[in-house]
Amino acid sequence: MKINANYLKLNESYLFSTIAKKVAAYTQAHPDKKVLRMGIGDVTQPLAPAVVAAMRKAAGEMGEKETFRGYGPEQGYPFLKEAIRGYYASRGISLEEDEIFVSDGAKSDVGNILDIFDTDNTVLVPDPVYPVYVDTNVMAGRRIVFADATAENGFLPMPDEGVKADIVYICSPNNPTGAAYSRGQLAAWVAYARKNGAVILYDAAYECFVAEEGLARSIYEVEGAEECAVEFCSFSKIAGFTGTRCGYTVVPHALAGGALNKMWLRRQTTKFNGVPYIVQRGAAAVFTPDGEKQIAENLAVYRRNAKRLSDCLDGLGIRYTGGKNSPYVWLRCPGFDDSWKFFDFLLEEANVVGTPGCGFGKNGQGYFRLTAFGGEDATAEAVERLKKLLGK
Amino acid sequence: MKINANYLKLNESYLFSTIAKKVAAYTQAHPDKKVLRMGIGDVTQPLAPAVVAAMRKAAGEMGEKETFRGYGPEQGYPFLKEAIRGYYASRGISLEEDEIFVSDGAKSDVGNILDIFDTDNTVLVPDPVYPVYVDTNVMAGRRIVFADATAENGFLPMPDEGVKADIVYICSPNNPTGAAYSRGQLAAWVAYARKNGAVILYDAAYECFVAEEGLARSIYEVEGAEECAVEFCSFSKIAGFTGTRCGYTVVPHALAGGALNKMWLRRQTTKFNGVPYIVQRGAAAVFTPDGEKQIAENLAVYRRNAKRLSDCLDGLGIRYTGGKNSPYVWLRCPGFDDSWKFFDFLLEEANVVGTPGCGFGKNGQGYFRLTAFGGEDATAEAVERLKKLLGK
Repeated sequence: MKINANYLKLNESYLFSTIAKKVAAYTQAHPDKKVLRMGIGDVTQPLAPAVVAAMRKAAGEMGEKETFRGYGPEQGYPFLKEAIRGYYASRGISLEEDEIFVSDGAKSDVGNILDIFDTDNTVLVPDPVYPVYVDTNVMAGRRIVFADATAENGFLPMPDEGVKADIVYICSPNNPTGAAYSRGQLAAWVAYARKNGAVILYDAAYECFVAEEGLARSIYEVEGAEECAVEFCSFSKIAGFTGTRCGYTVVPHALAGGALNKMWLRRQTTKFNGVPYIVQRGAAAVFTPDGEKQIAENLAVYRRNAKRLSDCLDGLGIRYTGGKNSPYVWLRCPGFDDSWKFFDFLLEEANVVGTPGCGFGKNGQGYFRLTAFGGEDATAEAVERLKKLLGK
Repeated sequence: MKINANYLKLNESYLFSTIAKKVAAYTQAHPDKKVLRMGIGDVTQPLAPAVVAAMRKAAGEMGEKETFRGYGPEQGYPFLKEAIRGYYASRGISLEEDEIFVSDGAKSDVGNILDIFDTDNTVLVPDPVYPVYVDTNVMAGRRIVFADATAENGFLPMPDEGVKADIVYICSPNNPTGAAYSRGQLAAWVAYARKNGAVILYDAAYECFVAEEGLARSIYEVEGAEECAVEFCSFSKIAGFTGTRCGYTVVPHALAGGALNKMWLRRQTTKFNGVPYIVQRGAAAVFTPDGEKQIAENLAVYRRNAKRLSDCLDGLGIRYTGGKNSPYVWLRCPGFDDSWKFFDFLLEEANVVGTPGCGFGKNGQGYFRLTAFGGEDATAEAVERLKKLLGK
């Protein structure tokens, strides 16, 4: 048996394990210090009561012979796909029910979608970037080219006609930079993809944080995107489902003459068996009137945190992106060219943990990511410490 | 963009859709007839009360700030891996916790595991077989050779030293034939794999139905299997989780010098984000004293159904395998060489629906699968109808 030797080309990712080790060493040496963690992109607000009630009810149904459910449709129950369709329709986007595929999360789909593409494709990935885009393509042995996201382009790289790519990753609002494309900017990407016969893999996991006019929450806000783009979204950030696991992927019929929708359906019916009924009931509850009201309250917590962080950096005169349409704030390390040195400085002097930008790609060197997903008190305290330390 | 052209080589599977169409046409033409469905491998008994209670409790925890859980370990929570470890230990098999990977089901893992193997491997698949083994390898463009499972070998093909294979699929108790390997027979496969440097992908989804002494419930009952075999198992059949979604895969450290365990971990941490916390709590409850008692009652229903079917065929003098250590009964169509003709005959004359064996491979032609997963009353009634029709 031969292993997939592409795995040997993967860079070992030490980012979060190194952070954990450094924090553990610090807290062991200084057990009296209260360390505030602003590093990991995980939510902290509990699930909305409407979601919990729906899941408890569904669990009860599974215990009764009359209401028990066995195998469901691999693509998701109609009740949930209709709710997602309604969520898009409320933003003026019309989808067919069978263009929506419910899954256990955007991370799974972003990785698994590559099954339906040939290995012989060139992939364009922004740098810095969510590491999964790169790793999943390295695993398959595809050529990867990078689009530099820098302060000069506002961390929003635009198409370069000199670069030929077949598969283009766009994450907007972006992880880690928090930068979000306008509809006009996305239209340029759609034009590039259509001209070059490329497909855009659009990661909309953070769309619920878009607040400003003119910015896109879905690539399908751009005319013609349905002919060149797959969109991934998730309940993780909008409704705190990081540990409950539900997402969805939109594969339009208009894309590649219908081929990709059929192939993804075949992939999912062959290698997947659907999301737990209980979880799908919980996800559908997100889009009920009660659910919408409750998740809005949770999101407001994170938005207030993001504003606290942005206001703090504004006050300190530190350059950053994100924070306004994103739970992430991406800042130029003040006084440091090395992200890890700034990490150590912040940990030791303010007992605040963030994520070194260099962990997301070469253009992340000298940058740093803070998240708004912490509690309000912790974020307020972290802001005070940052002001004190960096305002000197 | 180039699509994965291997998908064009997939056979369209019309098996279950053709069954559904034929049944729909029949019931429309004969609305007064009560059709009994003995075709699909889905469970009908509700979840055990202990499982429902654990999931309801976990859903409640997710709604409270203090007990909310975000991202969990991609490989599963220690509480569930420990419970699975205990389940193996109770059968004398010692596993390390990090050899167990919790997933959303055996179907996902059986498909996704292929990521870590080179395309340039020859795959050995029994015929007839669960179609997913073939389709997932066609999608990747691997060479497939078949091992004939026939009446002559009791539907349990043994290794052929003349056939060189790198990846060997074994499903025992088998879907669709219900035949189960003895430890001695599996030892021959383990010897073949070790001699040829092959890896065995062992699907143990139906292990809980093994009743007879000497038959294996895990390939790790065979010495040396940990050096050549991956094992897939599931809560679907033992605890009715077909719509609740939880399974697990064992990748021993001893396998391929530890490489496969590390590669699978990397695959799962890159393309998967774990099983819902709520579902993992439900799965762990299966192995509590209450849970074990309750699932035993559910399994007893299916075992009684299987015995009814076996006794009926014994009485009719119809040749079959399965039924004793499996929820499936695989019978030679009495008086028919064409599985579909027997399907039509049974539907029209007894209003009983089964699965034509030819849908599982060429050696399935002339055979038929009945399942014990129906209700007790429906199964008893189907048996009476079979006796009446086939005993003529």
